[in-house]
Amino acid sequence: MGINDIARQVKEASIKLAAMEAEHKNRALAQIARSLTERENEIVKANQEDLKRSVKENLPEPLLKRLKFDQSKIADGVDGINSLIKLEDPVGKTLLSTGLDDGLELYKVTCPIGVIGVIFESRPDALVQISTLCLKSGNCVLLKGGSEAMATNRILADVITKATEEAGVPANWLKLMETRAEVSEMLKLDEYIDLIIPRGSNDFVRYIMDNSRIPVMGHADGICHCYVDEAAGLDMAVNIVVDSKTQYVAVCNATETLLVHEKAAAGFLPLLKDALEQKQVVITGCPRTQKIIPVAPATEQDWKTEYLDYKLSIKVVDDVDEAINHINYYGSGHTDSIITESEENAARFMALVDSGNVFWNCSTRFSDGFRYGFGAEVGISTSKIHARGPVGLEGLVIYKYKLIGKGHVVADYSNRVKTFKHNKLDKKFPL
Amino acid sequence: MGINDIARQVKEASIKLAAMEAEHKNRALAQIARSLTERENEIVKANQEDLKRSVKENLPEPLLKRLKFDQSKIADGVDGINSLIKLEDPVGKTLLSTGLDDGLELYKVTCPIGVIGVIFESRPDALVQISTLCLKSGNCVLLKGGSEAMATNRILADVITKATEEAGVPANWLKLMETRAEVSEMLKLDEYIDLIIPRGSNDFVRYIMDNSRIPVMGHADGICHCYVDEAAGLDMAVNIVVDSKTQYVAVCNATETLLVHEKAAAGFLPLLKDALEQKQVVITGCPRTQKIIPVAPATEQDWKTEYLDYKLSIKVVDDVDEAINHINYYGSGHTDSIITESEENAARFMALVDSGNVFWNCSTRFSDGFRYGFGAEVGISTSKIHARGPVGLEGLVIYKYKLIGKGHVVADYSNRVKTFKHNKLDKKFPL
Repeated sequence: MGINDIARQVKEASIKLAAMEAEHKNRALAQIARSLTERENEIVKANQEDLKRSVKENLPEPLLKRLKFDQSKIADGVDGINSLIKLEDPVGKTLLSTGLDDGLELYKVTCPIGVIGVIFESRPDALVQISTLCLKSGNCVLLKGGSEAMATNRILADVITKATEEAGVPANWLKLMETRAEVSEMLKLDEYIDLIIPRGSNDFVRYIMDNSRIPVMGHADGICHCYVDEAAGLDMAVNIVVDSKTQYVAVCNATETLLVHEKAAAGFLPLLKDALEQKQVVITGCPRTQKIIPVAPATEQDWKTEYLDYKLSIKVVDDVDEAINHINYYGSGHTDSIITESEENAARFMALVDSGNVFWNCSTRFSDGFRYGFGAEVGISTSKIHARGPVGLEGLVIYKYKLIGKGHVVADYSNRVKTFKHNKLDKKFPL
Repeated sequence: MGINDIARQVKEASIKLAAMEAEHKNRALAQIARSLTERENEIVKANQEDLKRSVKENLPEPLLKRLKFDQSKIADGVDGINSLIKLEDPVGKTLLSTGLDDGLELYKVTCPIGVIGVIFESRPDALVQISTLCLKSGNCVLLKGGSEAMATNRILADVITKATEEAGVPANWLKLMETRAEVSEMLKLDEYIDLIIPRGSNDFVRYIMDNSRIPVMGHADGICHCYVDEAAGLDMAVNIVVDSKTQYVAVCNATETLLVHEKAAAGFLPLLKDALEQKQVVITGCPRTQKIIPVAPATEQDWKTEYLDYKLSIKVVDDVDEAINHINYYGSGHTDSIITESEENAARFMALVDSGNVFWNCSTRFSDGFRYGFGAEVGISTSKIHARGPVGLEGLVIYKYKLIGKGHVVADYSNRVKTFKHNKLDKKFPL
């Protein structure tokens, strides 16, 4: 069966899954958690196959680490599912209720988006995490994982499919794709797939965005900034920049470029250089930076680069407005932080920086669904529509308008026999 | 100056406009309303130019009617702006506030999307309506109207630009494009334009969707259905179907296909035929329909056609599930209504029909922002993300996460020196 037919089946399943009760979905999630534990040995065995083959194929160490899916990772997955079960159902919430007229009641009610296409690299935990998030939010899912994790992904998809089948979830709600050709095919199926969530490298995400008419939720670059203002406390600024840069360098919310107010630069940069050198961070700087600390020159390319490494570029700016303009021009709309004691400058920065996450006196590394308290995260979005910043369950739902009448027709209103009342109802959708 | 440079200027203006206070935006809207009245004669004169040229060029009568922009249309526009001023500002609303830890407060605050590209055909009122909606929601706008309305659009853009300049709105917040080549260019500018709203014919909207990487909000087809259930009151059903089909045939929320339960068909179809014949509606039907009333056969193509005319296709179905499946397969996700006295069937229909608007015992023609009480409408969306159904001001905003700390760093949480608290705050963003 080709991807087109599979996607059509998934679409059909999505209609049924959308109507499933919260309790039923939670029972199915619990069944997945139980099956993961029960079939632990099979999963670990499949993962060892993947690991063995990948070692032979000289997969780099960091990727091998991400590929590993052992007892402890399975236990993490089970914990995640148990937390997910406790979260409120995002589906069926009445967002608005209006009496358009006597006996004519409008309700805006949340519902699943439908079919989500998820494409992820290596980490098999992503398969468990995303498919359970989709189930909780009533969405069907077409998954494609990295080929290096094929055996692990296959067994995980099997565990989830069988567990949900047992729990009465509509058949075909989850399908695993295994080849790149299938992904190319999938990108064309806007008739059946409502949203694509890519999780992987920048180039990979950009390729998806460029090659599909289906909306994409996610981010390519994470070029995050710290801006140390004239009125910054220097110790606090050093701590925040060091954390933003070095707490975990390989992630999208790590800081890549530091902007410093010219009046703070002379006092701040030497302190920072000492602190960063202890962490082996390589610094490049603009000419004004180089006058204060001995560092290599930063080029235009540096301002556009997501290092994901122990590297930092530094630019001295005239004022908060130059910092804001630099960020809006070179940034990726991900996460940017101002360090200042001036409330006025903080307010200006947070109003004018056009990013999903704008921070005052804290590390860019806080930009994360778990830290934000969402319990579960689909990913971080730099889109300007639908969902921005860390996306939890609510990024996987949309809404329907439901109107209940008693034979009402529009002619009566255009003939002025009746007029609209538009009363707030504050009622839940009754059916 | 090319469209690329113009769009960049508009993008720059969008940063400033996003930070404008509600009161200031309302003053600018009031200035537009005043200027429209003051420069009424100029506007009418320009419109008469357009009308004269279009008559010569044999523009069809309905298009001439839509092109006309006289004193009464100007007065409608002014009324619209005055209503818009009274609506709540959609920007700066705190949607969520959480204490992540002591002194570390997260706020989710609404903000404008940024730059909206609007492409519309003929009607000059769309220019006034959409640009004032964008201003109210803090968005900049790139507009392209139909060439037949060029003189009218030019003067309207001039009126709005001068009025907002006087009121202190950032320069370049609104730009008018005049050629098709500029539109093609615009579709490529995903760096500067965040959302495209096309208002026009199906083919036109589909062309835009197929030729841009920028998200599109709107609808191509409006293939709406009424389903008359076994348990329908026949008089009510006739009234609703007649209104849904004939109250205004040229619009997206008019019904194109009627589905009838087989047990209701024999009693209902003759009644309906009489009522529709009085309105000169041409009916086509499936074989089962043809056994009950003498009508031409409906083809597969009929179920896929948006007539926008006095035409209706009818299909007899076995039950509510066949109706739901037909709608989900052939419909366009716009508006569909069930007529029934069975609450159970209504609930099933409203849960399983995957459309932005699902109705019970009322006309599909109610699917409209003004009727829903939104005060103003950007258009009707059949997307599955961001905004669905009639879209008011809130479809033009998104949100930012704003995090305020006191020097907080992530290392303290990963080292377990501190733990997250995630307390609900119920506070407005304080800056």
